[in-house]
Order: sequence, then C-alpha cells, then structure tokens
Amino acid sequence: MKKIQIGIVGYGNLGRGLECAIAQNEDMELAAVFTRRDPKSLGHEKAVSYDDILQYKDKIDVLVLALGSATDVPEMAPELSKHFNTVDCYDNHHRMSTHYQEINQIAQESQHTAMIATGWDPGLFSLNRLMAETILPQGLTFTFWGKGVSQGHSDAVRRIEGVSNAVQYTVPKEEILNSIRDYDHELPSHETHDRVVYVVAEENADRQAIETAIVTMPDYFEDYHTTVNFISLEEFQQSHTGMPHGGHVIRVGNTDPENREVIDYTLELDSNPQFTAAVAIAAARAIHRFHEEGRYGALTIFDTPPAYYSTKTAEELVGQYL
Amino acid sequence: MKKIQIGIVGYGNLGRGLECAIAQNEDMELAAVFTRRDPKSLGHEKAVSYDDILQYKDKIDVLVLALGSATDVPEMAPELSKHFNTVDCYDNHHRMSTHYQEINQIAQESQHTAMIATGWDPGLFSLNRLMAETILPQGLTFTFWGKGVSQGHSDAVRRIEGVSNAVQYTVPKEEILNSIRDYDHELPSHETHDRVVYVVAEENADRQAIETAIVTMPDYFEDYHTTVNFISLEEFQQSHTGMPHGGHVIRVGNTDPENREVIDYTLELDSNPQFTAAVAIAAARAIHRFHEEGRYGALTIFDTPPAYYSTKTAEELVGQYL
Repeated sequence: MKKIQIGIVGYGNLGRGLECAIAQNEDMELAAVFTRRDPKSLGHEKAVSYDDILQYKDKIDVLVLALGSATDVPEMAPELSKHFNTVDCYDNHHRMSTHYQEINQIAQESQHTAMIATGWDPGLFSLNRLMAETILPQGLTFTFWGKGVSQGHSDAVRRIEGVSNAVQYTVPKEEILNSIRDYDHELPSHETHDRVVYVVAEENADRQAIETAIVTMPDYFEDYHTTVNFISLEEFQQSHTGMPHGGHVIRVGNTDPENREVIDYTLELDSNPQFTAAVAIAAARAIHRFHEEGRYGALTIFDTPPAYYSTKTAEELVGQYL
Repeated sequence: MKKIQIGIVGYGNLGRGLECAIAQNEDMELAAVFTRRDPKSLGHEKAVSYDDILQYKDKIDVLVLALGSATDVPEMAPELSKHFNTVDCYDNHHRMSTHYQEINQIAQESQHTAMIATGWDPGLFSLNRLMAETILPQGLTFTFWGKGVSQGHSDAVRRIEGVSNAVQYTVPKEEILNSIRDYDHELPSHETHDRVVYVVAEENADRQAIETAIVTMPDYFEDYHTTVNFISLEEFQQSHTGMPHGGHVIRVGNTDPENREVIDYTLELDSNPQFTAAVAIAAARAIHRFHEEGRYGALTIFDTPPAYYSTKTAEELVGQYL
C-alpha cells in the first residue's frame, strides 16, 4: 500500500504535533513541511519554502494547515483549496458559516476535498453536542473548559504594566460539575468556571496594582472568581510552560418525566496542540478517502462516517468494535 | 413534511421506551405496535397482531425491533429485513459478524436498509472506542460498566434455593476509575468492578447458605469482590425495581513520550431501556435517510455520518454546532 502523503503548513506547536501524530500512523508519511520562514532555520530535512508549495501539488494527498485562525486560515485556506485537499483547525465560531461556504465552493470547483474545523472544540465537542442533543431532545447541554491554559487571557495579563510573564488557567467549578444532573437551567460561563492566574512580576513592581488590574478587567476577569498568584521565574519555567487543556460536554436529558439520563464527554489533555493534531491527522485519512471516492467540497465531522477515520474494513469494525 | 412512520415490534421495557422516544421527536410518528400476544391485552390503540405485520409493509418507514438478543432477533430479524427497513439492538458480540452478513445480504437483495446493534454497548460505546483508538493509536482502552443492574447476574441469584427476589448491581471501583490515567496495562473486569447483591429471602431460608452460594458461584461471582445484602420485600420494591445503568469508555494514550491524553465517555442512566430506545430512534432517522438515498444493506454506527441522526441541515449544523 502506498502511504498517504501528508503536507504540513506551518511549524509551530500544532505543526510539530502533526509530525508526532503522523509518526504514530503507519499508513501515513510526512511529505513536506512548508514554512514562510527561511526553511533552513527549521533544521528539518523536509522543510520547504511556502513559496514553492505548488511544486508539491502532485506529491501530497492531504495538506494539513497548522495555522492561526485569526488571519492565516482565512487568508491562506481558500487559495490552498484550489490546489490541494486540506484539513484545517479553524476555530472562529462567528465566521464559521462564511468559511464553510467559501471553502466548499472553491473545493467543489477545483475537485478537491476539505475538512474544516477539526480538533476538539470545534471538533469532538461539536460531535458530542450534536449526538447527545439528538439522542436526548428534551434536556440541557453544559460545556466546561479546563483545567487549561487560555491563551487570550494569558496575553491580556501579560500586557499589564509590571508583569514580565503570566499564565491563566480556566478551571471548572468542581461542585457544579459534580451536581450537574440536578440543574434545570443552563448556566453562564462565569458561574461554572474560576480563573487562576500565575504572574511573574518585574522587580519593584506594584503587586497590589497588578492584582487589581487583573481581577477588575472587564470581559476577561470582572465577572469571574479570580485568584492571582505571584511566583518566581524559576517556578514559572518549571511548572507553567506546558499546554494542558481539556473540558467536558455534558447533556442532561429526560427520557420520561421520572428518568434522567446523563452523557458526559470529558477530555484531560497534557498537550492541547498535540491532541488537536492527532484529531486533524485522523481527519486527513477521512478526507483522503472521500477524495478517492470523488466526493468534493467542504466537509465537517458531521458529514463523516466514523469508519472513514480508521484504517480498518467494515468487517473488521463489526467484529472488533461492535 | 410527512412524518417518519415507525413500527415497533415487541412491547416490553424497550418497546415502551421507544414509544417515549418517538413522542419526543416531532418528525416521527408511531404507526403500530406489533405483538405476539393478544393485541387487546396491551390496552394500546395501535396494538396489532404480529401475524398481520405484512399488511403494514407500505405504511411503515422503519421498523424498530424491541426484541431479545438470545433467540428473538436471530430468528425474526432476517425475515423482517425482507419486507422492512429495520433497526435492532442486537448485543450478542460473538454472533455479531454472522448477524451483520446475514442481514446485509437479505437487505441488499430486497432493497431495504438495516441498522444493526444500536444502543449504548454495542452502539455509543463502540463509536467511542473506535474514535478514541483512531485518534490515540498508542494507548490503552478501559471499559467500565455500571453502576447498573446486570440482568444475567440477577437471574443467576434468583435461581438459588431460598431466594424469592434479587437484583445485582455491577459497580466500577472508584479508586481505579480515579487513577486510570496512571495505568500502563489493561485490567481484567474482576479487578475493576465490584458486585453488590440485594436479596429478598424466603421465610426461614438459610441466609448463610444463600450468601455462600452467591459469592462462590463460578464465572458469575467467584473472581469478584461481592457484597450480599438481605432486605425486605418492601425495601426491594421501593428502591430496587428501577433499571439504572451506565459506564465509562476511557482511552489513555500518549501523543509523545511526555504527554498523556485522556478521553472519557461516561453514561449515567436512570433507565437503561429508555436510553437504549432513544439511541435506536435516532438510528431510525438515519436509516430512513439512507434508504431514501438508495443505500441498501446492513449498516452500523461506524457507517453513519452523525448529521444523518439529526433533523438539521448541513448549514444549520455548521452554524449552530461547530
């Protein structure tokens, strides 16, 4: 069997995670890593300048976009869909329908296949929200994020005067999580999560002023119960440079007035980018199969038979997994 | 929109659960309940004798088989697949491949569509095992069942002399569940579960003999830590006639040597049959759609795009769930 040839665009945390995931899947091979930096600076034997990407049109089965959602995916994905099958981890919910329609049209015209919004949220969490709500139409869905690092909130703290480094963890409230089946209404995010901040302050910085600036920051912290911890640079580097994350999608529904059923999908991740990459690589296998079957356009996790993520045949799946 | 016409075969706990589920889904309607008993004895306006089922060939879109796996499904499903689209909850793992091949051939020849083995295990647990192992190829999968009633173990206890009624709960060991991410090998079922039995003894029965007969019973209890509680008939009727169940499918995998990722799918069900029925009814919607598209034969949860379970369009799913 010829291995599925995967190209990676971008070589940050997600790009390196994709490389780990490809190495764990024997039916796949890394063909090239495309970078907008000087390819030599990556120190990677398969690094190629992004400017030369079209020379790889016939050497790559699926291109996985390890790019940011803020500007890179919206700018680059449409162009790349003209020439490649693609998988992206786009996560800007407000622009999702626009992104879907744009990629769908381009990919259909160019006879390519694209999976948009893979990863875990959007992605696996979306799948579980849909399945749980479909199975239990009368009920409530709760999403908890964390314990995990919020990049946006960490950035906001780092911008405060006197802060030399900072990380913000979003933490679901255990007591609500443990009694969630008893709630009969949905809950706003600030009632279900705490925020815990670790700050490395500059020498002689006003720690009280930093703490006040954090806990009163509108939108980010004001409505939340926030704890601020000042720590040394050593402790920061030792304990707070990982990228753990995770969360829960919980559906609580009634099948009749007396009987309550709970579906809880939970992730606990040491590495958010590596796990996101692992999902994207499974999606790449599905996209390759869709394309081989002549199914073109943009697809999502909702369109994809679970068997398409797997290397196993229908008979093997029935025998081993049912 | 014409509603999807659902027929139910069998009117035990699962059949009544299907009726609850149909009532919660506005695009569906109960067409008939087929019974091998005297239809009048059901006291149900849509009860029909099973002998007359072929008269309903053109009035039913999908027939859901609320039948036992021991003998009823193997005997009746092949015949029914000649005339109807079907959904079954067949759960005999050892005969699953045979069942799949048999139904697949018949349904393809008769141009019908069948979903086999719906429910939660097999069913949702199968889906989660497949997805989690595909995303995390290097890891271990653990399945826990319960806390819930095991019908087979309850039956075995009721057969002991001096027992007038009994229920057996399978209970996952909390301490293993809570530290599962630290295990580097799979665990046998008797190491991960306890068994708790509630017995109503006959008057003057030898309770010590009953307890010994239970805890030493080969295959069923011998290898397990088993607790036997003698209770009154009143307590039994008040607290132990429900059908709670549930469990966990947990995948612990490494994305690289340092980073461990955990996927935990958990169900906590007040009513095992009602929840199983809710899954089967979502499957009926998918089977109806497959059939409308001309896709014939036997299908499983692995073949089914999640969108097929839902009433929503692709655009709605992208906008509301991604």
